[in-house]
Amino acid sequence: MSDISVVMGSKSDWPTVKETCDILDEFGVSYEKNVISAHRMPNEMFAFAQNAVDNGTKVIIACAGGAAHLPGMIAANTPLPVIGIPGQTKALGGMDSLLSIVQMPAGIPVATTAIGKAGAKNAALLALQILGITDKHIQQQIIKYRQAMHDQAKESGQYLE
Amino acid sequence: MSDISVVMGSKSDWPTVKETCDILDEFGVSYEKNVISAHRMPNEMFAFAQNAVDNGTKVIIACAGGAAHLPGMIAANTPLPVIGIPGQTKALGGMDSLLSIVQMPAGIPVATTAIGKAGAKNAALLALQILGITDKHIQQQIIKYRQAMHDQAKESGQYLE
Amino acid sequence: MSDISVVMGSKSDWPTVKETCDILDEFGVSYEKNVISAHRMPNEMFAFAQNAVDNGTKVIIACAGGAAHLPGMIAANTPLPVIGIPGQTKALGGMDSLLSIVQMPAGIPVATTAIGKAGAKNAALLALQILGITDKHIQQQIIKYRQAMHDQAKESGQYLE
Amino acid sequence: MSDISVVMGSKSDWPTVKETCDILDEFGVSYEKNVISAHRMPNEMFAFAQNAVDNGTKVIIACAGGAAHLPGMIAANTPLPVIGIPGQTKALGGMDSLLSIVQMPAGIPVATTAIGKAGAKNAALLALQILGITDKHIQQQIIKYRQAMHDQAKESGQYLE
Amino acid sequence: MSDISVVMGSKSDWPTVKETCDILDEFGVSYEKNVISAHRMPNEMFAFAQNAVDNGTKVIIACAGGAAHLPGMIAANTPLPVIGIPGQTKALGGMDSLLSIVQMPAGIPVATTAIGKAGAKNAALLALQILGITDKHIQQQIIKYRQAMHDQAKESGQYLE
Amino acid sequence: MSDISVVMGSKSDWPTVKETCDILDEFGVSYEKNVISAHRMPNEMFAFAQNAVDNGTKVIIACAGGAAHLPGMIAANTPLPVIGIPGQTKALGGMDSLLSIVQMPAGIPVATTAIGKAGAKNAALLALQILGITDKHIQQQIIKYRQAMHDQAKESGQYLE
Amino acid sequence: MSDISVVMGSKSDWPTVKETCDILDEFGVSYEKNVISAHRMPNEMFAFAQNAVDNGTKVIIACAGGAAHLPGMIAANTPLPVIGIPGQTKALGGMDSLLSIVQMPAGIPVATTAIGKAGAKNAALLALQILGITDKHIQQQIIKYRQAMHDQAKESGQYLE
Amino acid sequence: MSDISVVMGSKSDWPTVKETCDILDEFGVSYEKNVISAHRMPNEMFAFAQNAVDNGTKVIIACAGGAAHLPGMIAANTPLPVIGIPGQTKALGGMDSLLSIVQMPAGIPVATTAIGKAGAKNAALLALQILGITDKHIQQQIIKYRQAMHDQAKESGQYLE
Repeated sequence: MSDISVVMGSKSDWPTVKETCDILDEFGVSYEKNVISAHRMPNEMFAFAQNAVDNGTKVIIACAGGAAHLPGMIAANTPLPVIGIPGQTKALGGMDSLLSIVQMPAGIPVATTAIGKAGAKNAALLALQILGITDKHIQQQIIKYRQAMHDQAKESGQYLE
Repeated sequence: MSDISVVMGSKSDWPTVKETCDILDEFGVSYEKNVISAHRMPNEMFAFAQNAVDNGTKVIIACAGGAAHLPGMIAANTPLPVIGIPGQTKALGGMDSLLSIVQMPAGIPVATTAIGKAGAKNAALLALQILGITDKHIQQQIIKYRQAMHDQAKESGQYLE
Repeated sequence: MSDISVVMGSKSDWPTVKETCDILDEFGVSYEKNVISAHRMPNEMFAFAQNAVDNGTKVIIACAGGAAHLPGMIAANTPLPVIGIPGQTKALGGMDSLLSIVQMPAGIPVATTAIGKAGAKNAALLALQILGITDKHIQQQIIKYRQAMHDQAKESGQYLE
Repeated sequence: MSDISVVMGSKSDWPTVKETCDILDEFGVSYEKNVISAHRMPNEMFAFAQNAVDNGTKVIIACAGGAAHLPGMIAANTPLPVIGIPGQTKALGGMDSLLSIVQMPAGIPVATTAIGKAGAKNAALLALQILGITDKHIQQQIIKYRQAMHDQAKESGQYLE
Repeated sequence: MSDISVVMGSKSDWPTVKETCDILDEFGVSYEKNVISAHRMPNEMFAFAQNAVDNGTKVIIACAGGAAHLPGMIAANTPLPVIGIPGQTKALGGMDSLLSIVQMPAGIPVATTAIGKAGAKNAALLALQILGITDKHIQQQIIKYRQAMHDQAKESGQYLE
Repeated sequence: MSDISVVMGSKSDWPTVKETCDILDEFGVSYEKNVISAHRMPNEMFAFAQNAVDNGTKVIIACAGGAAHLPGMIAANTPLPVIGIPGQTKALGGMDSLLSIVQMPAGIPVATTAIGKAGAKNAALLALQILGITDKHIQQQIIKYRQAMHDQAKESGQYLE
Repeated sequence: MSDISVVMGSKSDWPTVKETCDILDEFGVSYEKNVISAHRMPNEMFAFAQNAVDNGTKVIIACAGGAAHLPGMIAANTPLPVIGIPGQTKALGGMDSLLSIVQMPAGIPVATTAIGKAGAKNAALLALQILGITDKHIQQQIIKYRQAMHDQAKESGQYLE
Repeated sequence: MSDISVVMGSKSDWPTVKETCDILDEFGVSYEKNVISAHRMPNEMFAFAQNAVDNGTKVIIACAGGAAHLPGMIAANTPLPVIGIPGQTKALGGMDSLLSIVQMPAGIPVATTAIGKAGAKNAALLALQILGITDKHIQQQIIKYRQAMHDQAKESGQYLE
């Protein structure tokens, strides 16, 4: 039973999604990760989504590229919040992934983050911020994580040569 | 038992999809039409797609707008050919619908037509051309339909004032 | 002390954001709404964001258009989850709003929904789904809301003429 | 006499179209392949399209890039279904190819697949799904092909490290 | 026998193409106009293009919208210069028409003008400038036409209230 | 005194424009080539354009990238036909160059070709086709050039392995 | 002798540019306004730009649409700062104007503002902010103007019903 | 106390912003440079902007990529002119950065330059042109700089081989 479930539409998304998992590891939050293809494993996708509440999952993170249906179709099958990461694509940069994920019709939201690795990191942080609403320990970790980012950014200005 | 099944993600797609049905009516081919929302009726969508072969359907036409997952998710659940019509949208003109439908990953094709009403008409004609491969009566009707379009276009040049 | 805080960059966003508030009203969840302009009220924006945790806010929803900085700048000043609604725009349809909100750099996520009114409705539902992780009453309401959407969509197929 | 005819606008499209042919080989379906340039071989293109029915062709697959007129112009000259593959392009990624192929006016459809190699594979599969309507052996092959994709996707989740 | 031949893919292009013809009328140059649909009248299109030199035509102007193949396919069938006018479109503004016309592969150029009515006017002027290379009377008319535009633009500055 | 004048906005455009010159060399038509920057050499640009008729130039070809003003500003200063080649660009692929060149307001056309090297070749061929209206030797060369392209394309189909 | 010179490429830009002038009027800064078309009045444009320093102009504001060359070509002919306003356009919303103005090559900057009326207002304010660097009265006016905007935005939140 | 302050959202912007600083060095104008992240250092960003006038800064240059809020948020907190450089981005080329910076709402302008290194150079030159309004030495330097660019461009035409 993990708080966060991270899924991707293809193993080829793993270099992106690894950024998500690295942050979740760093925060020490329990999570599961798996490949669930909307188009090649539709039944598993529905079972996964429809069982997520009973499995104790709190937040789902889903990454897919191109005609990226995974986040939205999972969202259609669970009342849990679903975070969508648009994969970067060769032909169109990821604009196809972004629009396929973010332009959900009224009724079924997907919390969309940026295209590619920045979005993958932010999907983890967003999930943690959501858990942090009621888990003050995680919220404190977010605050510290941001303080570290702040310090690192601030210091980096000294090395512009 | 109909040869063609026409579905749309929302009743608001009907003014577009009516163009499809009008052509099917004109050709006298049996078809069914229904609203099946990928996001609001996911179980019905899967049941529909997974039963389509057994129901005697030969070609499926699906129209949806925005993050348009309906054609691709149906395609993932049936070995029948699926034709996708990208709905025109207010914000982005239908570029979101188009990319959500056409940019399917390798393995699960959707035969995508143009955005909006032109695409809706062409979805009907494409389905008929597919049936026409083995049904020479339909193929003859296509040839006549084109001849009529040809004659009308040719004659229209006389009225440019 | 409200669970959800809804802000918009300009009173001209209200017709969009009203869709958000109508759903929150329907669910009976406490919320506040206000105009906070990132560019015209930057100090208030920072004060708002930096005080949000202490004010008992759990989720922030922010709508803005064009070079839409409001959601991202609020997100930079609070560890709470921030949901961003890209406003539809006259010149570019809202592509500018969408990219300004969704393409956040690694570190500070904004949970982005669709452009315009669909996104406004979904921002409310996403906030409710987030609260529903720990508030099972809200989660049940989401499930009922979806059931009603489902029934309405299903029934609508009978009226395609 | 082949069931499927695969044409491309230029020999430079071959690395893309080879993906189509590899799948057709795998399925053991008869096909022909050729270079037919819409702009450099217009008469051959018309002869090819106008003779396709008589030659026993059932489905035509055409790949072209940039101002990609080949699929649409073939479609205008045959009642057979034509599948269009938009080639990826250096300057615009293939958005030019995609719009030139998919945005056909009402009357003459082109069944458009994704840009580049994914679309090339899917063009083959779509042609096979079309033949599979009446050829249950091919339909069974499609079902097995999908099962293999399913199994491979499912198994791949074990190797995310 | 006319110097300029103006064709359009559909009678619905006439409000745009009328701008072309009005300028040609104003200059008193002989021209013909007709509807020739690339997709509905392909044989007539080829005959038109292949006979253009023998018919004494010097410049061809072609307008089409969406997957606009008319200018490029005419160009492929004649050594005469072909000017393409991208029609404005409802869904994508004419970006589809523009890319379908301008992105011609090496070998067969189309002289592309702006989307819509501005492009229609400029197609006429470009044709006249081409004729003006060797017809100094037309070149003088162009110079006068520009002088009039100049004077009108200059004077218009007085009425900014 | 050359028939064709080829200019580019920067020496960095030369690898593109060399494709233009290679074709003009092949056809043996007299031409001049030069760097004339609209933004760094505005006076030379105007002098060049305003003297072109007197210098015996018949067609001008201009290549520029980004906010590509060179073709349009030359066109504004000469009654000769001006062909514009949009340079490919790193950030936006050349969409910026294309729109800056093709979207000319009514009154001053630029005959725009494709982005990058395909457009550079086609600019040469378009200029030759224009000269070929009255110079039947050049028109014959165009016809032979096309025949060679045709033969090469046709033959290339034998080597698809 | 005015501090600011406001020019537009066509009288049709006046409804946009009036927004610029209204703000300059409100601030009581001296300015001139005129129509100067880059393409129809190129010599006047150059004379205007080359004389601007001697005429005592400090900042130039230029608005144009489509292939908008006016701001960049003025900038190429004066060492004064030039502010460019991209006009909104029917076909492409103003994306063409924006890219034609902002994507200037290294060497000749144009200070670009937003598409349409928002950009027109901001062009005035940017010019005033530039003058305000050394004219503290204007800088104070800017501060007051912003305070008024602030108060109005803040108060507007009370009227969300 | 420096005339110009150059800030960037991340040290990763330095290769771009170095182009700005190299030109400022070449002109011998005093400037400061620093990393100030809108999202990771929001308080420092506001302090920086709100103190800029008192610190004697005259012009601010800010570079950021993606959802680039830095230039606009600085502009909202100072009456000084702010120049924004859109960083080039991997997924979308910098279209996201450009729209996030240039599409500012009425009231708070950002003087936007081109995407990437060309824009970085032009940001320096624009700042210098602004200072040159009242500092005739700088204005003379601009004129000389342009003369050198002119000479180099003109001469480069000799080396096209």
